[in-house]
Amino acid sequence: MKIAVLPGDGIGTEIVAEAVRVLDALDLTLEMETALVGGAAYEAHGHPLPEATLKLAKEADAVLFGAVGDWKYDKLDRPLRPEQAILGLRKNLGLFANFRPAICYEQLTHASSLKPELVAGLDILIIRELTGDIYFGQPRGKRVATDGHFPGADEAFDTMRYSRPEIERIARVAFEAARKRNKRVTSVDKANVLETFQFWKDVVTEVHKDYPDIELEHMYVDNAAMQLVKKPKAFDVIVTGNMFGDILSDEASMLTGSIGMLPSASLNDSNQGLYEPSHGSAPDIAGKGVANPLATILSAAMMLRFSLNQEEAAQRIEAAVKAVLAQGLRTPDIWSEGTTKVGTREMGDAVLKAL
Amino acid sequence: MKIAVLPGDGIGTEIVAEAVRVLDALDLTLEMETALVGGAAYEAHGHPLPEATLKLAKEADAVLFGAVGDWKYDKLDRPLRPEQAILGLRKNLGLFANFRPAICYEQLTHASSLKPELVAGLDILIIRELTGDIYFGQPRGKRVATDGHFPGADEAFDTMRYSRPEIERIARVAFEAARKRNKRVTSVDKANVLETFQFWKDVVTEVHKDYPDIELEHMYVDNAAMQLVKKPKAFDVIVTGNMFGDILSDEASMLTGSIGMLPSASLNDSNQGLYEPSHGSAPDIAGKGVANPLATILSAAMMLRFSLNQEEAAQRIEAAVKAVLAQGLRTPDIWSEGTTKVGTREMGDAVLKAL
Ligand SMILES: CC(C)[C@H](C(=O)O)[C@@H](O)C(=O)O
Ligand SMILES: CC(C)[C@H](C(=O)O)[C@@H](O)C(=O)O
Repeated sequence: MKIAVLPGDGIGTEIVAEAVRVLDALDLTLEMETALVGGAAYEAHGHPLPEATLKLAKEADAVLFGAVGDWKYDKLDRPLRPEQAILGLRKNLGLFANFRPAICYEQLTHASSLKPELVAGLDILIIRELTGDIYFGQPRGKRVATDGHFPGADEAFDTMRYSRPEIERIARVAFEAARKRNKRVTSVDKANVLETFQFWKDVVTEVHKDYPDIELEHMYVDNAAMQLVKKPKAFDVIVTGNMFGDILSDEASMLTGSIGMLPSASLNDSNQGLYEPSHGSAPDIAGKGVANPLATILSAAMMLRFSLNQEEAAQRIEAAVKAVLAQGLRTPDIWSEGTTKVGTREMGDAVLKAL
Repeated sequence: MKIAVLPGDGIGTEIVAEAVRVLDALDLTLEMETALVGGAAYEAHGHPLPEATLKLAKEADAVLFGAVGDWKYDKLDRPLRPEQAILGLRKNLGLFANFRPAICYEQLTHASSLKPELVAGLDILIIRELTGDIYFGQPRGKRVATDGHFPGADEAFDTMRYSRPEIERIARVAFEAARKRNKRVTSVDKANVLETFQFWKDVVTEVHKDYPDIELEHMYVDNAAMQLVKKPKAFDVIVTGNMFGDILSDEASMLTGSIGMLPSASLNDSNQGLYEPSHGSAPDIAGKGVANPLATILSAAMMLRFSLNQEEAAQRIEAAVKAVLAQGLRTPDIWSEGTTKVGTREMGDAVLKAL
């Protein structure tokens, strides 16, 4: 089992290091190889996703990813910016299915912006399509407008698009996932305005015929953004496109108040996957040894489950994380009165011990 | 001063009736004419925005709008659905600047999903561009894909676009609005992925040179969706495109917990405007006399301020609304233990009395 380890920028190196220690401690034969990605790769090789890194990722069964990005790369041309690495990996590996759980851990309920009763026990799974939509649609660019409100003016444009098979496969992923959960899927669209999402809605409705045991509900994206705030626990599985999924999955993870705890997985057709924490590279706290490694450690657990078929090892990690929370250990992002503040390394140590 | 009154569907008729009574009670010469719109217009004339309604709206100084939509029209072809009326009005009247305040009223703070300290005193103004972006961009439709992941498959597509003058004018509206407030503008984009929003960011940055007294910050839309939940009071004015604005303004209004209190205004270049509550047509409670008319009454106040140049009358209405809240009167949507539950009509009566 081959794992490409791509720590990236900011806190990426610190948090991935802890996840690697955890993986090492399991009795599995894992071949792990590390490579540069993002700003770090740009500094060393002039490109955020060097050929060698991409090759390594393609050949691996799974990619363990830290985070990329830093303010200092903001002035670079778009193709050279750190986040292009993540878009490049998604595209080249065909990682179309993004799993973003929004879970509220019992001990961390108070950390949410929301009132405790609204988030206690929250467990939503957002499934975001990740290789289509306006993220990759062509044509895109700049031109002189020939129609619209200001013909003759400079304009920029992008293309939103979804094909039937793209929608079908992500819908199936969502229905299958719901089967292992509470059997409810909310498909989020904007069918009242967009052709792309009217089609999305139609195709999801068709695919649903194969899943009569699953309850399907359609919801407009603006309403979904509201309902997540109003009554998040009403959701089970949410499935949506790349753009809406970007927004809603971040909103949902922030609802939990502990985004430092949330893993994510991005899978392709052959269960090859990229695993990364839901949070970013946090350049402001990088190198200080205070970042929360648990989202990355939990991403490693997802990796064992989805790409490496090691359910037992995955559960061991998840149990260990629950144990350290129960012990009252907290990195600064989730610390509160009465708990013990620890750094990145100490948190890693505690998880290792709990294993 | 001519006002087109378009109550629409669901609770629209009830809530607009109260706003009209309030307007009638002011010592102003207002010429008000009512017409059908949305599902009601479709039933009577076969179209959600009949010629006569559009003509009336165009010739008026302002439109007072209720709400449109009902589940029963979901099966109609898109061009005949109620919400097309609102898109048609925006487009035909050139209502490019949508003002969506998200205000948390002191007495209603507890109604929010968020912890009281996070929303007490909240006062955000979201300025959403309303006639461009992927809402109206051409081409759009269905076709057979010639490239992408599944060449040969059916696909649907839409075009996102913004021209320089479209961005310039909404940016100016935002900077001017910020000048009368806390002098901070957050421009929300997705410049890391979309050509359209890289251009948006560049143009907003240029326009900002004319407003050195205003602080400008750029934020990605996914981050904005998170920060609204995490620390909503950190925002003053948010300016963004049509699609992102649709999502974020609804998210922000739900944060207040009292969307039944929030008005909105949509303006064109000559200050002609459409005024409507931020909430929808709520078919489930239509005709029961329990809907909250305050958002519509406050929309009438915005109308007096922005389109009819009657600042004093606007303030009288706003003071009256504050007074009824202080009296403890509440429609069911904002009712809580210890306050007095009233219906739509009684609430209107109370505002009239407080005037
Ligand atoms: C960095 C950016 C391109 C990316 C996205 O928009 O997909 C990020 O926000 C994410 O959600 O992983
Ligand atoms: C009804 C719909 C077309 C509309 C929109 O998306 O603009 C609504 O959601 C709004 O925000 O006014």
